[in-house]
Amino acid sequence: MSEYSTKGTLCVADIWLEKMPDWQTLNGHCETALKKSNMNVLNGLVHQFEPQGTTAVWILAESHMALHTYPEQNFLAVDVFTCGDEGDPAAAVKALIELLPTTASNQYNQLRGKRLIN
Amino acid sequence: MSEYSTKGTLCVADIWLEKMPDWQTLNGHCETALKKSNMNVLNGLVHQFEPQGTTAVWILAESHMALHTYPEQNFLAVDVFTCGDEGDPAAAVKALIELLPTTASNQYNQLRGKRLIN
Repeated sequence: MSEYSTKGTLCVADIWLEKMPDWQTLNGHCETALKKSNMNVLNGLVHQFEPQGTTAVWILAESHMALHTYPEQNFLAVDVFTCGDEGDPAAAVKALIELLPTTASNQYNQLRGKRLIN
Repeated sequence: MSEYSTKGTLCVADIWLEKMPDWQTLNGHCETALKKSNMNVLNGLVHQFEPQGTTAVWILAESHMALHTYPEQNFLAVDVFTCGDEGDPAAAVKALIELLPTTASNQYNQLRGKRLIN
């Protein structure tokens, strides 16, 4: 017997860029991508590492988003999670990839809360 | 030709509990699990949803952690990401599972930043 208790979807993306935008530009693109995919920011935190690199996390009405930059590699790691039927994390990631000067990307979707009972 | 540019590991876990602890207890277990796996909290945000459910995100020196509770299902979704060689996200998740009254769990590890070039 199996039971599927789907709670949400995690979409993760590894993104390589032609050039890493400054934080203000990148943050603006994140906000645009979230709005386009019907997600609403409730709160957010940003940390600028020395000598470089930014980590940002957002609490969304629908769940969360996290972002890590590696400017020395023009690389960006993005996670978007939604708990239920509201919002579309894959669409948010796709929108962000399109807004950025992306040269290559991997995108994975992981269904969460899938429980198998024997 | 292939190139592997490993940047970090994302460990995600779906956890079912006998009973959902209150936030203070759960937060304490998260802090303990992070310490045990050599991760350091730089900042954090918590949002309590109405009528229930908690989302929490932490910026770590090593990357981030995110947590979502579904008290009505005694279900917890946890993500821990590390950007480099510091810290052990799988160990943090394992420690958290052991600290909680866990009845079932799924745990997945995802290598991030793996790039294939033809």
